[in-house]
Amino acid sequence: MAGARLAARLAAHSSTLLRPPPPHAAAAAVRRRLCSPSSSQRGHYLKMGDSCGSNSHGAVTRVLFCGPYWPASTNYTREYLQNYPYIQVDEVGLEQVLDVIQNYHICVVKNKRIDSDIIAKATQMKIIMQYGVGLEGVDVNAATEHKIKVARIPGSTTGNAVSCAEMAIYLTLGVLRKQKEMDTAVNRKDLGVPVGDTLFGKTVLILGFGAIGIEVAKRLKPFGVKVLATKRNWSSDTLPCDVDEMVGKKGGPQDMYEFAGEADIVITCMALNNETVGIVDHKFLSSMKKGSYLINIARGRLLDYNAVFDHLKSGHLAGLGIDVAWMEPFDPEDPILKFPNVIITPHVAGVTEYSYRTMAKSVGDTALQLHSGEPFTGIEFVN
Amino acid sequence: MAGARLAARLAAHSSTLLRPPPPHAAAAAVRRRLCSPSSSQRGHYLKMGDSCGSNSHGAVTRVLFCGPYWPASTNYTREYLQNYPYIQVDEVGLEQVLDVIQNYHICVVKNKRIDSDIIAKATQMKIIMQYGVGLEGVDVNAATEHKIKVARIPGSTTGNAVSCAEMAIYLTLGVLRKQKEMDTAVNRKDLGVPVGDTLFGKTVLILGFGAIGIEVAKRLKPFGVKVLATKRNWSSDTLPCDVDEMVGKKGGPQDMYEFAGEADIVITCMALNNETVGIVDHKFLSSMKKGSYLINIARGRLLDYNAVFDHLKSGHLAGLGIDVAWMEPFDPEDPILKFPNVIITPHVAGVTEYSYRTMAKSVGDTALQLHSGEPFTGIEFVN
Repeated sequence: MAGARLAARLAAHSSTLLRPPPPHAAAAAVRRRLCSPSSSQRGHYLKMGDSCGSNSHGAVTRVLFCGPYWPASTNYTREYLQNYPYIQVDEVGLEQVLDVIQNYHICVVKNKRIDSDIIAKATQMKIIMQYGVGLEGVDVNAATEHKIKVARIPGSTTGNAVSCAEMAIYLTLGVLRKQKEMDTAVNRKDLGVPVGDTLFGKTVLILGFGAIGIEVAKRLKPFGVKVLATKRNWSSDTLPCDVDEMVGKKGGPQDMYEFAGEADIVITCMALNNETVGIVDHKFLSSMKKGSYLINIARGRLLDYNAVFDHLKSGHLAGLGIDVAWMEPFDPEDPILKFPNVIITPHVAGVTEYSYRTMAKSVGDTALQLHSGEPFTGIEFVN
Repeated sequence: MAGARLAARLAAHSSTLLRPPPPHAAAAAVRRRLCSPSSSQRGHYLKMGDSCGSNSHGAVTRVLFCGPYWPASTNYTREYLQNYPYIQVDEVGLEQVLDVIQNYHICVVKNKRIDSDIIAKATQMKIIMQYGVGLEGVDVNAATEHKIKVARIPGSTTGNAVSCAEMAIYLTLGVLRKQKEMDTAVNRKDLGVPVGDTLFGKTVLILGFGAIGIEVAKRLKPFGVKVLATKRNWSSDTLPCDVDEMVGKKGGPQDMYEFAGEADIVITCMALNNETVGIVDHKFLSSMKKGSYLINIARGRLLDYNAVFDHLKSGHLAGLGIDVAWMEPFDPEDPILKFPNVIITPHVAGVTEYSYRTMAKSVGDTALQLHSGEPFTGIEFVN
């Protein structure tokens, strides 16, 4: 590539960095510039270094971020890749994904549902990945059929699990201390109200003892709580060696109702799938102690909305703290938010400088590795 | 005492429990009923079992709570003492304290300033105490001159330190996650903003490593932070044996400026006295790293308002989380609260079911022990 052309591309890229073009314009420009996909992909299933253009440095590997939410995911990835003009990072609105998907090699889904229609159109796609761990919106079978790999970024190494665990502690303390009533007291010039509750002395049930659950338990321990946890398979080699010190009682999914009867606080840390959708339902909530608290930092649809609403209304649930909701973004006027003991944060449990910079590196490295045909590091394929 | 009279007193007492009389009326009624103080207090300095009335059960020991704030302190103490009709618990507004103080044997100060004028009028007073630890509002010298004992309730045994430590963690996570910006995002239907910060990887300086500081450090450890701490005297036998595991660097008051330069977060856990008032001043704040955070769960006047304001304005401080303020209740319209990275709670760090029930027992037991002339348990005299 001539020096002048490279300079021009770098300039174009760096202006994109500062002020991304409108999604439609960006997508159209890309459509014109992109080369066709290679019809032969010999050797490395995912290797594309020599798959388009005359040489690997002349080709552009294109990464699509779906939708405007979690904007730092796109921005931080762009920043990480700013010195690699042959990697192009675009972001389009959720509605435009179907129109442009055929131009991209990597798709970072965020909260876009990637169904078989989209996958069928993604003719150049090599990797569909999440900026994090949750892949419940991706039709993995359809991706597999189209020879597209699907990947998550394991939370235990990127700070995602750590960040989510910190948020779980924050929301737990927030419902125990009655965040909304504290705000009201400040505004009314009251002092010394409300009377809150301590974590100290409580029993906490962690539903789903994966990377996040482990980090939550670790942090809960010195608060003087008893931790109960359920997990499908306790023989996993990812468990820390001091798990028995952290967890007072371990159970399988079938034990969750019994454990709920012993817990003052339940924290959901499960992946969302066919078995877990709506798992916090009337039966489960009724198994919980009267006056107990529920925290959800995983996925909104783990909770049955009506069941949670009813148990808040009856006073059976003393508080609800959620970073995730049934629809996202969630309607701030939704009646469930009107209960004085319900607090919500805007799906930011994993959104910290630490985890977002690290995950930007994972996405960036994935793009660079795809481009050069090197082995992938830092992501975990599920198909 | 005749059964009928006892029943009537119990009934009167229980109606007081449910609906306290207006302060003036209560005080006047008490003035009429109260016997004179004993002029001779032989033996036990504080013994008053036989000091008024014909026998110890006929006398009434009177406890005054100052002011309307922290209402649970009064209510929980009344509940604890509901079966002891010879202990009377009253609460009057801050302005009425001077008018009624001469009728009381125990005074629970809350946020009332107890100066030498009030003490001079407190002719029956035996004990001035705090519902907690902070005695900075009490003129201890004047109390000593008048042979009045002054006491706190040690926080390490009542849950007060534990409760305050939990609040310190809560406020720290709140400023790191940008609570106000999260609320704004929810209301704007944004998702995945703001990008917060983790406790993980940070260095935290605890100013004042007493009962609260210790509990804070204990909880911070598994968050993956380095703890620095300053304390006047590290040889204290109240320090836990694993202090070296909890604290990476220990220093005296003179080290606070150097330590501030290493810390990402400073948490003030000191008592307020002549040496510590305004200790977080321009010099200290300038010693802190640019972009660091300040948390105060101790006393508002540890912080120099103007210095903190200036360092927020310049962006040197990235956030401020306070449970205590310079004037209390604090004006919700104060300009310092308008910074998007300042959060405040209504002086409730120690206000939890756990600590407030335990401290109600301490006050209640103190009254019962004073009444019967038994040795005091659960309080710590400072004079």
